[in-house]
Amino acid sequence: METNLYTVTVTPMINMLENLSGILEKASSFAKSKQLEWHPEGMQESSLLNSHILFDQFPFIRQVQIACDNAKNGVSRLSGIEAPKHEDTEKTFSELKARIEKTVDFLKTIKPETVIGQEERKITLQFFPGKYLSGLDYATLYLMPNFYFHVVTAYSILRKNGVEVGKGDYLNNIPWHTQ
Amino acid sequence: METNLYTVTVTPMINMLENLSGILEKASSFAKSKQLEWHPEGMQESSLLNSHILFDQFPFIRQVQIACDNAKNGVSRLSGIEAPKHEDTEKTFSELKARIEKTVDFLKTIKPETVIGQEERKITLQFFPGKYLSGLDYATLYLMPNFYFHVVTAYSILRKNGVEVGKGDYLNNIPWHTQ
Repeated sequence: METNLYTVTVTPMINMLENLSGILEKASSFAKSKQLEWHPEGMQESSLLNSHILFDQFPFIRQVQIACDNAKNGVSRLSGIEAPKHEDTEKTFSELKARIEKTVDFLKTIKPETVIGQEERKITLQFFPGKYLSGLDYATLYLMPNFYFHVVTAYSILRKNGVEVGKGDYLNNIPWHTQ
Repeated sequence: METNLYTVTVTPMINMLENLSGILEKASSFAKSKQLEWHPEGMQESSLLNSHILFDQFPFIRQVQIACDNAKNGVSRLSGIEAPKHEDTEKTFSELKARIEKTVDFLKTIKPETVIGQEERKITLQFFPGKYLSGLDYATLYLMPNFYFHVVTAYSILRKNGVEVGKGDYLNNIPWHTQ
């Protein structure tokens, strides 16, 4: 096992996106359990997907879309491989799970050797014209903290709405060995 | 610049703890601005430090203490160097800033070579008896996501209380180069 730009970005983002997918499964079941017969169809699902902690914050659905785009575009910037375009059209938990799945599918097509060794690559971001980061600084000081920011915010929005998720859902799929 | 266990853990955690310290500065000013003459002394500071988004969640002050301990104990586990004990006695923003500062001071004493190359080290955690993780899996799939979890949760608690912090405070101290 080696510490390299692939194992510190692609590997943990695939792992976390799969955890996020499990968290969405719980959220979807929770919304269904609150959907009563006399509600407009899908009311609780839509309400949870569009909720946030603060009025001036992106809602849950957008936090997940951003986390997916952070992962997809981040790896694209590091490797130089073009990322697929994903339109932000999801309206249900199952569509949002599919968005995560196609993001993970893209990440899995990335060959480690296209990311490994890109420490000195100049990474530019559209919000910061005229500036660039080295590949290593981008990966460790920008991409990963930003990715986790949106995953944790998505998680907090669900928690605030009563979805029973805990640290074990967030830190899932950990490759434990037995002593 | 090299991707190694030091540059993907110690470097970004020092960076983020320093950002968190700046965020605390804003929170402290905000609390002071709400502290009126007829309030009990330090009422608003204490209230903000002890607030949370959910009743069954650790409050702000504890989220910061945990993020500090994640960093200190995580690096200790990877390097085998004993971490200093920090009691959870902070009651003010300035004490909490000092907690962050002594954590950063400890991280800065860690020589890169004590962490680099520890990918295969067996990492055990008290909550998971009889199990272990490799150093690399621990760093990338447990330590860093857990550290960011508590930093982002602390940030969200402040946002929810009206402190004017934004992504620029969270992703601060980014070593941009000019094109």
